Amino acid sequence: MTSISRPARILTVSDYQVNDPFWSQFIQLVRNVVIPYQWDALNDRIAGAEPSGAIRNFKIAAGEEQGEHYGMVFQDSDVAKWIEAVGYLLASNRDEALEEIVDRVIDTIAKAQHDDGYLNTYYTVKEPGNRWTNLAECHELYCAGHMIEAAISYYQATGKRKLLDVVCKFADHINSVFGEEPGQLRGYDGHQEIELALMKLYEVTGNDEYVKLCRFFLLERGSKPHLYDEELKKRGGTVHFDQWMLENKQYSQAHEPIAKQTVAVGHAVRFAYMCTGIAHLAGVTGDRQMLEASRRLWDNMELKQTYITGAIGSQSHGEAFTVDYDLPNDTAYAETCASCGLIFFALRMSQLEVDSRYGDMMERALYNTVIGGMSADGKSFFYVNPLEVHPQTNAHNYIYHHVKPVRQSWFGCACCPPNVARLLASLGQYVYTIRDNRIYTNLYVGGESAIQLDEGKLVIQQESKLPWHGDIKFTVKSAVASFELALRIPGWCDQATVYVNGDQIVGSHIHQGYLILTQQLSEGDIVELKLSMPVSRMKCHPYVRQNAGKTAIQRGPLVYCLEEEDNGKHLHQLIVSKEASFELYPFTELGSDMIGIKAQGYRRTSEPWTQSLYRRNYSEAEQPVQLSFIPYFAWANRGIGEMRVWVEER
Amino acid sequence: MTSISRPARILTVSDYQVNDPFWSQFIQLVRNVVIPYQWDALNDRIAGAEPSGAIRNFKIAAGEEQGEHYGMVFQDSDVAKWIEAVGYLLASNRDEALEEIVDRVIDTIAKAQHDDGYLNTYYTVKEPGNRWTNLAECHELYCAGHMIEAAISYYQATGKRKLLDVVCKFADHINSVFGEEPGQLRGYDGHQEIELALMKLYEVTGNDEYVKLCRFFLLERGSKPHLYDEELKKRGGTVHFDQWMLENKQYSQAHEPIAKQTVAVGHAVRFAYMCTGIAHLAGVTGDRQMLEASRRLWDNMELKQTYITGAIGSQSHGEAFTVDYDLPNDTAYAETCASCGLIFFALRMSQLEVDSRYGDMMERALYNTVIGGMSADGKSFFYVNPLEVHPQTNAHNYIYHHVKPVRQSWFGCACCPPNVARLLASLGQYVYTIRDNRIYTNLYVGGESAIQLDEGKLVIQQESKLPWHGDIKFTVKSAVASFELALRIPGWCDQATVYVNGDQIVGSHIHQGYLILTQQLSEGDIVELKLSMPVSRMKCHPYVRQNAGKTAIQRGPLVYCLEEEDNGKHLHQLIVSKEASFELYPFTELGSDMIGIKAQGYRRTSEPWTQSLYRRNYSEAEQPVQLSFIPYFAWANRGIGEMRVWVEER
Repeated sequence: MTSISRPARILTVSDYQVNDPFWSQFIQLVRNVVIPYQWDALNDRIAGAEPSGAIRNFKIAAGEEQGEHYGMVFQDSDVAKWIEAVGYLLASNRDEALEEIVDRVIDTIAKAQHDDGYLNTYYTVKEPGNRWTNLAECHELYCAGHMIEAAISYYQATGKRKLLDVVCKFADHINSVFGEEPGQLRGYDGHQEIELALMKLYEVTGNDEYVKLCRFFLLERGSKPHLYDEELKKRGGTVHFDQWMLENKQYSQAHEPIAKQTVAVGHAVRFAYMCTGIAHLAGVTGDRQMLEASRRLWDNMELKQTYITGAIGSQSHGEAFTVDYDLPNDTAYAETCASCGLIFFALRMSQLEVDSRYGDMMERALYNTVIGGMSADGKSFFYVNPLEVHPQTNAHNYIYHHVKPVRQSWFGCACCPPNVARLLASLGQYVYTIRDNRIYTNLYVGGESAIQLDEGKLVIQQESKLPWHGDIKFTVKSAVASFELALRIPGWCDQATVYVNGDQIVGSHIHQGYLILTQQLSEGDIVELKLSMPVSRMKCHPYVRQNAGKTAIQRGPLVYCLEEEDNGKHLHQLIVSKEASFELYPFTELGSDMIGIKAQGYRRTSEPWTQSLYRRNYSEAEQPVQLSFIPYFAWANRGIGEMRVWVEER
Repeated sequence: MTSISRPARILTVSDYQVNDPFWSQFIQLVRNVVIPYQWDALNDRIAGAEPSGAIRNFKIAAGEEQGEHYGMVFQDSDVAKWIEAVGYLLASNRDEALEEIVDRVIDTIAKAQHDDGYLNTYYTVKEPGNRWTNLAECHELYCAGHMIEAAISYYQATGKRKLLDVVCKFADHINSVFGEEPGQLRGYDGHQEIELALMKLYEVTGNDEYVKLCRFFLLERGSKPHLYDEELKKRGGTVHFDQWMLENKQYSQAHEPIAKQTVAVGHAVRFAYMCTGIAHLAGVTGDRQMLEASRRLWDNMELKQTYITGAIGSQSHGEAFTVDYDLPNDTAYAETCASCGLIFFALRMSQLEVDSRYGDMMERALYNTVIGGMSADGKSFFYVNPLEVHPQTNAHNYIYHHVKPVRQSWFGCACCPPNVARLLASLGQYVYTIRDNRIYTNLYVGGESAIQLDEGKLVIQQESKLPWHGDIKFTVKSAVASFELALRIPGWCDQATVYVNGDQIVGSHIHQGYLILTQQLSEGDIVELKLSMPVSRMKCHPYVRQNAGKTAIQRGPLVYCLEEEDNGKHLHQLIVSKEASFELYPFTELGSDMIGIKAQGYRRTSEPWTQSLYRRNYSEAEQPVQLSFIPYFAWANRGIGEMRVWVEER
């Protein structure tokens, strides 16, 4: 482990203009489909969909309309996530009409804010007088956090301060309500989010009160006597959602102080958001306890509880982690939102220390679970991303009640689609981590960036053929005296070669998975990185019993899967040969140029077998077959059928 | 399929005196441990256990005590099942002190009966006036059924009629309340049981009103408008347990008329009890529709939804079946009670038609799930009988919330232990099915039986070395002019040889899995049956994805399993060699002489692997190891550890 020195920086969305043959299409979907659709939904204009009420709640709280609060206690956050995503899109493409809409929403939000700074439509409209009485369940600080993220995004894109002022006033109010002073409330939110938002707000405002408040929330978490029990008593035992959420304190990572937490437990999204805040705080303050907690929890998550698709959350109950090395493929929860959170966490870790594992994990989650969560037309989404699906059984066995064999229209539940939208719309900020004058590439995503270094502004263009080909090219558009590129060599790559202006560079220094290019680069210089992209047979840790004797096929960052559409029914009868060579083929059925993989294998076969369920000393025959794998993210776009990532190998 | 002619008979418990080195020890446990313990429990005398209230409820209903009803709405059935089991034990060993206790309980029960015949402590004490208003949930007819079974058992053992008179009066009352006449209630119980009990009551009393009533309940089931919805409306929407039990009509097999039901669905115990009643009715009446339903439902259950251990119920949710070929080993519900029910069903099927499958299934369920459900000391029980357990994970992943790695004290929930008790105490009645003058052996359980045939009483003694050795011996103690033995050749047997008075019989006729012995047998004649008992590698149907590439080891009727205690941790890393020969060894660790099985195999091994969860192109090594299998029923008697039945084979 390296130790922290000066914390590394990341770019704002405005600093990185994405222009990438692969990623731009997703961002266009967000801009042209997801955001307009979501705006209609927030305004209850989608025929046949359950109303959202989210905009109307703000209008009612603002006194612009009469009525009752509608929807979940955290309905406000849907508006916030939408504004946040819009802000990111505006950062690269200002759009007057869209800004006009947002400005009007912000006017309403500002009117809904109380004189003391408090802002929450549920408590304003439905339960006035009950503010901060059910932190465990009622998401007030969670909603505050999302509004802070929205304000920062919109401010950074447009320079407009109105919402930023609103959230600063709100944050100042929160800072007056919570704390260790007499009369202040010692508490924290059941759903972490305020912590990471306060750190961002500090970065924008420079106000270190927000850092202190973040630290307070993190240190307070899990202390005894327990907040949830105390406030439950105070409010006379009323429960908003469900008693078990209060009793099972691991669910919200409040079972013990963070300093004592050693493993990833509970609701995976909450965990990832909490850790994002912890790592950010550690980076800004150098707090050893938080630094160690973030490393410890990352280690446990990455090394013992993450799916090969970059998904987390092995069970549906509590949308939660289970235990080390328990990674069921078919009953996985593997929520899309949790993979977004995992990427937030990874970015903050990349600022704490140099290690290619963080970029590797971002890539794994992005290319598989995050984009797999969205359909090719941007209109439907997976919340749950299993690695094995058997639709015929899923409908009848309750352990699969959460698993859907096809993506769902997003309006059914509002969490994952906006999270995907805001992540993809802000993809540019994940590409580089800047440490002094060295640019660490976390992601190979084409685009142009303007990076402020001590010596001036560096403009650098990146082009990438990922995930289909391993060719990456950097063009220095405007150089500064001395800067260095540190190129992440992905875990899936056998051999990386680098060329500067066409000349191969040999003997480069590799540090923590990064190839450090110490050559002086000037305007017009071209750096080419060629990453070999062999098809790999991935093996899972021997303690993971669900994958014993199985292999998963991966090429570059893409994990592959078998689908019934290409391979027939009963995918469990298929075996990939240990000796098989792989053959790439153009997979174009979904309208874009993808690469599929064929491999030799076997199918277990038997004569029709109907007179018994069990047979003595029977040996099935095996027939040679050709297996066709497609990228995991593209699954379930051709109707309902079986799918599996981990395939028996022999 | 054979067609029914004259329905075959079975023995009463009094007709078969079990005396078997294997089974007598279990029956002794029931007599000496389970029954006394349960009596204390029913009387709330177990320190530290949740009170039962069952006896006290009857005393309150009888006016002998004051107080409130305690416990479940079906608490009465615990008393009934206890009396039933005691009756079976008394059939072979009268016991004055025990009878005195039962007689006093029966006095109380009789006093608790209303003048019109109605009997149910919950509705008498807690909800007078609400009789028959929630048939879907409230188990009134279920409790009636169990009391009928108790009365029959006690009457057949002792000749005492008091409880029999009580239940006849109750059954007559039920017959007046339910029916198609104006003013009668058209309904049936949410939990089947009354049906099979009425058929038994008919056999004892000869009153065919009970057959008609049973038929009414079976025909009424699943008709529209639906009973559950209608009565819910009538009582103003109140729910006793949970709304979904009313909505999901498959849960209680009330989704459609029995004549249209084609597959086993819903709560496995209810299914098995219902089918027992259907088959019994079909046998007595020759009703083709019921005959076809019983065959159809049996077929689906046996051929597509039964575990190799004779367990049914693939999911915890609803303790229910899932769908064809879905047999998860680790999340199985596989309730002990359901295997008892399966044996009841099998016995009735054996009366309908000659087919060794029914005896095979009784044997499979008895030797594996039923006795596996009880600890070696008779003091603790499994309700859930998984075929794979990973205790470290079970505690953390909610899909395993129902799975316990060790047997539980029985008083926590009262269903399975009394069911095991009454089944084992009545084991004798399952041994033979008698068709005219031919004795079909369903089970090889040592004991002496007196069988009334047309020509007189046949007394025949059976001795059996099962499950350890395949030697069975019949001695004719008292012959009648002509009778025949039909010996079931179990599915696990390669070669069966028969000797009469030491001479091997060759060329015997095999019919539907039974070897028919046509030799004239006289007093003193000895028939010996030698069943080969090779170790078999069992293969599961290729559609069962959970067992693909795996084998289960079986010898005789016993399914075997690997335990961590003998094979170390990480049982999923073990592979049994396709070429392995098997070696028997004495397994005596549990205090009795059992036979274990050793086989050559491999353990996947790898160097310590801590730096990642996934590795590219990695091949684990395999080390030869010796695998030690023990009988499945004996698992979890040596502390908490991993267990698995289905093992990878290669």
